[in-house]
Amino acid sequence: MKLWMKTAMRGAMMLPVAGLAGLAAHAQDASAVSAYVDSSYLFLIGGLIVMFMAAGFLCLEAGLVRSKNASMQSLKNIALFSIAGLMFWLVGYNMAYPSETILNGIFGVPAFIWAGEESLDTGYAASSDWFFQMVFVATAASIVSGTVAERVKLWSFLAFVAVLTAFIYPIVASWEWGGGYLDSEWGFSDFAGSTLVHSTGGWAALIGAIIIGPRAGKYFGEKVNPMPGSNIPLAALGTFILWFGWFGFNGASQLAAGTFDDINAVSKIFANTNMAAVGGVLAAMVLTSVLYKGKVDPTMAFNGAIGGLVSITAEPLAPSMGGAVAIGAVGGVLVVLTVPLLDKLKIDDVVGAIPAHLVCGIWGTIIVAASYGNVIMPPAADAEGAIGVSYVGQLVGVVLTGVFVCAASAAVWMLLKLTIGVRVSEEEEQLGLDRADTGVEAYPEFAS
Amino acid sequence: MKLWMKTAMRGAMMLPVAGLAGLAAHAQDASAVSAYVDSSYLFLIGGLIVMFMAAGFLCLEAGLVRSKNASMQSLKNIALFSIAGLMFWLVGYNMAYPSETILNGIFGVPAFIWAGEESLDTGYAASSDWFFQMVFVATAASIVSGTVAERVKLWSFLAFVAVLTAFIYPIVASWEWGGGYLDSEWGFSDFAGSTLVHSTGGWAALIGAIIIGPRAGKYFGEKVNPMPGSNIPLAALGTFILWFGWFGFNGASQLAAGTFDDINAVSKIFANTNMAAVGGVLAAMVLTSVLYKGKVDPTMAFNGAIGGLVSITAEPLAPSMGGAVAIGAVGGVLVVLTVPLLDKLKIDDVVGAIPAHLVCGIWGTIIVAASYGNVIMPPAADAEGAIGVSYVGQLVGVVLTGVFVCAASAAVWMLLKLTIGVRVSEEEEQLGLDRADTGVEAYPEFAS
Amino acid sequence: MKLWMKTAMRGAMMLPVAGLAGLAAHAQDASAVSAYVDSSYLFLIGGLIVMFMAAGFLCLEAGLVRSKNASMQSLKNIALFSIAGLMFWLVGYNMAYPSETILNGIFGVPAFIWAGEESLDTGYAASSDWFFQMVFVATAASIVSGTVAERVKLWSFLAFVAVLTAFIYPIVASWEWGGGYLDSEWGFSDFAGSTLVHSTGGWAALIGAIIIGPRAGKYFGEKVNPMPGSNIPLAALGTFILWFGWFGFNGASQLAAGTFDDINAVSKIFANTNMAAVGGVLAAMVLTSVLYKGKVDPTMAFNGAIGGLVSITAEPLAPSMGGAVAIGAVGGVLVVLTVPLLDKLKIDDVVGAIPAHLVCGIWGTIIVAASYGNVIMPPAADAEGAIGVSYVGQLVGVVLTGVFVCAASAAVWMLLKLTIGVRVSEEEEQLGLDRADTGVEAYPEFAS
Repeated sequence: MKLWMKTAMRGAMMLPVAGLAGLAAHAQDASAVSAYVDSSYLFLIGGLIVMFMAAGFLCLEAGLVRSKNASMQSLKNIALFSIAGLMFWLVGYNMAYPSETILNGIFGVPAFIWAGEESLDTGYAASSDWFFQMVFVATAASIVSGTVAERVKLWSFLAFVAVLTAFIYPIVASWEWGGGYLDSEWGFSDFAGSTLVHSTGGWAALIGAIIIGPRAGKYFGEKVNPMPGSNIPLAALGTFILWFGWFGFNGASQLAAGTFDDINAVSKIFANTNMAAVGGVLAAMVLTSVLYKGKVDPTMAFNGAIGGLVSITAEPLAPSMGGAVAIGAVGGVLVVLTVPLLDKLKIDDVVGAIPAHLVCGIWGTIIVAASYGNVIMPPAADAEGAIGVSYVGQLVGVVLTGVFVCAASAAVWMLLKLTIGVRVSEEEEQLGLDRADTGVEAYPEFAS
Repeated sequence: MKLWMKTAMRGAMMLPVAGLAGLAAHAQDASAVSAYVDSSYLFLIGGLIVMFMAAGFLCLEAGLVRSKNASMQSLKNIALFSIAGLMFWLVGYNMAYPSETILNGIFGVPAFIWAGEESLDTGYAASSDWFFQMVFVATAASIVSGTVAERVKLWSFLAFVAVLTAFIYPIVASWEWGGGYLDSEWGFSDFAGSTLVHSTGGWAALIGAIIIGPRAGKYFGEKVNPMPGSNIPLAALGTFILWFGWFGFNGASQLAAGTFDDINAVSKIFANTNMAAVGGVLAAMVLTSVLYKGKVDPTMAFNGAIGGLVSITAEPLAPSMGGAVAIGAVGGVLVVLTVPLLDKLKIDDVVGAIPAHLVCGIWGTIIVAASYGNVIMPPAADAEGAIGVSYVGQLVGVVLTGVFVCAASAAVWMLLKLTIGVRVSEEEEQLGLDRADTGVEAYPEFAS
Repeated sequence: MKLWMKTAMRGAMMLPVAGLAGLAAHAQDASAVSAYVDSSYLFLIGGLIVMFMAAGFLCLEAGLVRSKNASMQSLKNIALFSIAGLMFWLVGYNMAYPSETILNGIFGVPAFIWAGEESLDTGYAASSDWFFQMVFVATAASIVSGTVAERVKLWSFLAFVAVLTAFIYPIVASWEWGGGYLDSEWGFSDFAGSTLVHSTGGWAALIGAIIIGPRAGKYFGEKVNPMPGSNIPLAALGTFILWFGWFGFNGASQLAAGTFDDINAVSKIFANTNMAAVGGVLAAMVLTSVLYKGKVDPTMAFNGAIGGLVSITAEPLAPSMGGAVAIGAVGGVLVVLTVPLLDKLKIDDVVGAIPAHLVCGIWGTIIVAASYGNVIMPPAADAEGAIGVSYVGQLVGVVLTGVFVCAASAAVWMLLKLTIGVRVSEEEEQLGLDRADTGVEAYPEFAS
């Protein structure tokens, strides 16, 4: 921030103009630079908006745990975002976009420590892409932290996050966004990550919840003991922050905004993303009102919004606005129906992340085929080798992702369980993680 | 987010260059596309920033209600933003920018379901404009929810929001921004909506407060029973979020930022918007300190900021920075003086939205004439048929908006009162809406 | 927001094309305008993101004070942002970028009331620069408010902020960013303000804490009485908001983003800024875990993030990503070690701002020399008169800033102490500033 303006910029304003040929060459070069700048700028702004979703998850989760664990939950959210950044730099990025692969192209060869080089040919600044991808990784990790809250050990949780963000998520991402197997063989399409980000986080959360087990006292035989969240306005703020962040999540996944077609696409994605959340909120509200004698549970409305947003994430561009409302509304319904189902299965998901991210992620991924002509089976590849979108192709992506993430997550959670342990002691859980493990109560003057 | 970069973009960088004629034609076309992209991008980024104001209203309102209603207030804010999006898509946008009008052009003919088509000729992506307009609509609805908090019925409130965002606000907007009556006949000028958004929301809130009546126990004869807000830091955060959002609200209302004049205008709007808030805060603080024996009420400072921001919204570009401070400071004074006045009238405005949005909206709209030469009466139309800004022209806009919004709001609130009712039962109000109507307490472990 | 699209923009899309000469002239002019628009846009967006840091400081500080002072702390944060804007307009900007200087160029001559004129030659809209600079000033003021919380008098604090933002900070900034003494004589380099913003705020806070004295009951002989913060999730949210804002703070300090080199630089700054925070969080967590028997204090992790961010602020571009992690990690360690050290010295820093902003600001500034070849002494000026970066040059900047800010701050705090007083009465402190001085409790229904 020096006195650059007085000297440097004047120079930059001078164009080398040398007749028509020079002008045309300049125009072409300028156009390449301009597209490079625009895409990088979109990654940075979009990534920044998505980065803020970390604050949204923090608020949502700290608001939905009991006050005796809210300080720990805050810490976990700050820590997981840090671990995600560290591991995605050390390993993850190179796993997601590998230069070498093994096993018929299914897995990348781990190449450690990312160090992007800037080149006009790639079409965007390497660091801007790294940043944009990194905040998606962090989102997947945030999903896990909500489900396993209030009883998972801090360092075990962070160890799981390290593996998730270094290997599990990047391998899944490589199958699709890295140009890999699901894309080329099955025509699988997942625009911004209903499956790749949200279901991946959701599967990892589900396996974690099963292996770690429910909170002490949550289930007595068939009875479910409600453990209400300690700060609902904070959870509501988190919901709005996530809603805000989702415009970056889906909008910037168009990856370019500098042309007529691209800016139209980003604009439509904004409108559709909003309408899916609208559908999710209103469907969840109406349904809870019907199911629960007129009472409308705000946490269902919050998760309805998130469920609607997850549902549209696999294809936020193709549907009409009415279609986006409908896709989101089904997501909201799925949330309201899945929450009690999990309780019946005695799977203790503290914040409702499995319904919102996993179930809606599956729904959103499969319904993509409706936007592409309701094709059942993957069609034959076209002249350029591309395979169209189909229900079965989408389902294959969902299932393969689920199988892989569940297997890998189970291996990691079990390994942790058998070594350093995944669960705090009964005394710690009873006392609350804040006093037991952080020494800092979330609300030392309020809680009884 | 596929491997587009490796192939598609390279192609996009190639320019069709075919001699000078081609180059000139390309330059002209590129310029049109560039302006289209810039405007759409501004709408999306500006709209996103304004969207976040929904989170600001949430925090402000959830912080200023009593804890027994904070969960419901959170729900209402999520729900109203959803209803606003739904109705503005179904009806509102087409009412605000009607293709056909009736009654001498005063009312648009309702044309249902908006479906924008993208065309380079319009100068911006249709969906980006829809999104930008929609978040303004939601702002108007957010104003109402604060005033009528703690006793309005959830579904009645949402029904009112539906009518407000489908018809009442869009009709008012059409008079000015839709190129209608107030603009063409009276030279009425309201840059970003002191009247169209904030006073409209404020009038609707005022009528709602009158028809619904004050909270139980608020007024005993001449005595006013203070009902302090439950979470002041949350309300402060809400204020800063609104302040943040206002740069999008006013700045992006310049509607373009790609030229020397436009970017200068947006920059000046940023500076003036900030200074008006500054004036509002400091005036409110000094005045409360004088009036209340040295004590400075933070909620007055918060509403002073909002009042200052509302005051500058009708004309954030023309005033000098000193002028912006003064306009905002008067807004802050009006807030401090109007809050007790409403209590005297036994109009129970829970969060102080009527002083900040309605009173300051009127003030800000009328003082626009000071920026345009202090003309009293609307001058004759110029050669192009445009009428200049005048005090009387501004006042006509204020009064007509007030009369229409009050009449329409009264009709809707009364209709609701006579049918499903607008007010919860005494028992529900006593118990708190959280326990009575949501089943979820905002702070189950804290509140006594 | 009138019907501009239908008429005005079409005209704007028409280019004056008059043969090759006209086209070349147009291209050159368009390029200057384009750079002007891009830089101004960057200042506005970057400034807006930095502006939101005010909300981050609010959350952090309101969360870390006791509940009886949280309402006052909220008010102070709203008020200081207002005072900063007012004074930077009235005096500060013209002090930082003076047209005349005295005393061998070390001090600017105060020229009152900034009124920027827009000119294409400057390369950016004047108001956009004012806005961007102003939010940096406000950051310096926010640092002070956290340290001296819970016992400083409201109006004395605001008076100090007025002097800090009108004179103290702008004078320091002028030495470097205004093209002054430290830059030209010592090759001092401070990219986005580790010293100029964060250490300046930190020194002012330190002197304030010493002169005002610790909170009543904080220290008994050698014993330190912990006074835990009242709302840890709110403080965590504040940390994430600051982290978010720092991308604007560092990224937009590149001052331009429209060229290949600039957007690469901004992108690298984003990645490095994130990694420094990562290093700070993880180092602080590991170290507290070691020092405190396995317990991880979340407030150390929060301040670790901030300390890492401050550490990278002096040079976020040159280091590798691994270097950024290391620089941030040292910052996190410094935070954890300095917090108890201050308590040993009986300097009562309520939120830990001195470790995070002052100590890490010094560290970050000095380590800049490592990025420029580990030169010990300032080298001779090159042909253009520029002096390279060196450890001693950096140290001189740190020391001169420290001496000046401490002397000036001591003078102001002492003057306030001897006149209106800087400290509330024992009764007010005991009762809490909320009830004593605002009349509005932060959490009237919760706190015991």
